Amino acid sequence: MKVVYTKNELKQEIQKVKKSEKTIGFVPTMGYLHQGHLSLVEIAKKETDYVVVSIFVNPKQFNSQEDLEKYPRDLQRDLELLKKENIDLVFAPSETEIYSEEPKLMMDIPELTNKLCGKFRPNHFQGVLLIVNKLFHLVKPDKAYFGKKDYQQYLIIKRMVEDLNMDISIVGCPLVREENGLAMSSRNVRLSDKEKEDALLIYRSLQIAKQEFLKGEKNSEVLREIIKDIIETGKNNKVEYVEIVDPETLESQKVAKSKNMIAVAVYTGNVRLIDNIEL
Amino acid sequence: MKVVYTKNELKQEIQKVKKSEKTIGFVPTMGYLHQGHLSLVEIAKKETDYVVVSIFVNPKQFNSQEDLEKYPRDLQRDLELLKKENIDLVFAPSETEIYSEEPKLMMDIPELTNKLCGKFRPNHFQGVLLIVNKLFHLVKPDKAYFGKKDYQQYLIIKRMVEDLNMDISIVGCPLVREENGLAMSSRNVRLSDKEKEDALLIYRSLQIAKQEFLKGEKNSEVLREIIKDIIETGKNNKVEYVEIVDPETLESQKVAKSKNMIAVAVYTGNVRLIDNIEL
Repeated sequence: MKVVYTKNELKQEIQKVKKSEKTIGFVPTMGYLHQGHLSLVEIAKKETDYVVVSIFVNPKQFNSQEDLEKYPRDLQRDLELLKKENIDLVFAPSETEIYSEEPKLMMDIPELTNKLCGKFRPNHFQGVLLIVNKLFHLVKPDKAYFGKKDYQQYLIIKRMVEDLNMDISIVGCPLVREENGLAMSSRNVRLSDKEKEDALLIYRSLQIAKQEFLKGEKNSEVLREIIKDIIETGKNNKVEYVEIVDPETLESQKVAKSKNMIAVAVYTGNVRLIDNIEL
Repeated sequence: MKVVYTKNELKQEIQKVKKSEKTIGFVPTMGYLHQGHLSLVEIAKKETDYVVVSIFVNPKQFNSQEDLEKYPRDLQRDLELLKKENIDLVFAPSETEIYSEEPKLMMDIPELTNKLCGKFRPNHFQGVLLIVNKLFHLVKPDKAYFGKKDYQQYLIIKRMVEDLNMDISIVGCPLVREENGLAMSSRNVRLSDKEKEDALLIYRSLQIAKQEFLKGEKNSEVLREIIKDIIETGKNNKVEYVEIVDPETLESQKVAKSKNMIAVAVYTGNVRLIDNIEL
């Protein structure tokens, strides 16, 4: 496994791979890797010849300086984990390497970014679009892998690639949970034991709402109230949103239908967690 | 010279070229080619191994339905001209081929698009950014060629490529004029004989202002008035803007300096013409 820190080193490696006609699989991450990331890596390894993982905590997609500063980082730990996975290349650039000049270009997909998390995190997805677009041009992957925990992000990236005719397959991969059901997230390490217990209510509420849906409850408002009530029995929990949406358009649905997605965002203590379930 | 009309055909050709390790030069056009376009083609032929020209009248960059409808088109004539130039590939897609789905992604570089022509043509440059970005991903050029008559466009594209780390050199090529001084434009065919005569005042006014500048007149306001007055002696002319700007930022300059650019947009009859000169 090779580790490079600059665009130039990366470019040289990618040129070599392109000449060898190997296919490139790419997993962009913000580091502090967990089993969710590693599951993406494993799918990439099965589907492509040469796997690149990037580790870059992108300041442009954070809304609060506090969240950015508290975002966990441990490059050595990440590199050890990736070494065990036997991937080919890690790109771990500094902030100045990526934003050597302040970008002036802005990208947006308003129809998709003005919903769910986008409503509460102004400029978050615009920051995601920009960094992923940049990384795609640097890594030149054939396939790129995104977890469906960040479902809205996956959808936005897929749409960007389609609208710009980028020659990249976007692969959405299943959300990975801890044994207790909590959706894996790098932010989970910031939870205290008591908060972690409260955080378990998130997935539990989604499961119960899904059971109610399967038993016949189609009223979105009712299902959302069930979820909100369960989650907020946790003293550290504050629901930011619960929405039942069409998985292609992210439009809110008044009547829940099969294949709709329930998406939630919750503050557990100071930590913002998201989760989703398909009906 | 091969002519393709679909993204799939284009992709196949480009794949072959990429395997052969030839460099690709790309000249995106809206057709109705003139000597200005052909000068780009000739530079591309000198600098790269395989030259692609696209011909696509992009509806998303027009502000008025009338301008779009009246934009001159003659594919057979264009193909004959390009055949003589002995280029390798023409991509001439239909509107539905390019916009098979209505794009949801929006791109902008507000600092550069809110000035000069961008002030008067809302969404024009956003449309240019989108189509050029799409074409770049389809054609995968090493170098792309833009005329400096559309200087603002050239600057915006260059910035897009830098901000997105696209691996493409943007080459700005000199403005080409008719013998009488009129900047070459596909729109010139829409001018009547009398209008054409009036249109000659545009470049003449720029030359005179430059002479005044070289003789010592540094006051932008004065230089702009000189230009406006000369142009509007033509009965069919109406100045849209005259600006003296920094060629990197496009910021208006109160005191004209060497290397600044004078940019003008003029309606001659119903035809919008632009021109510029370096001080």
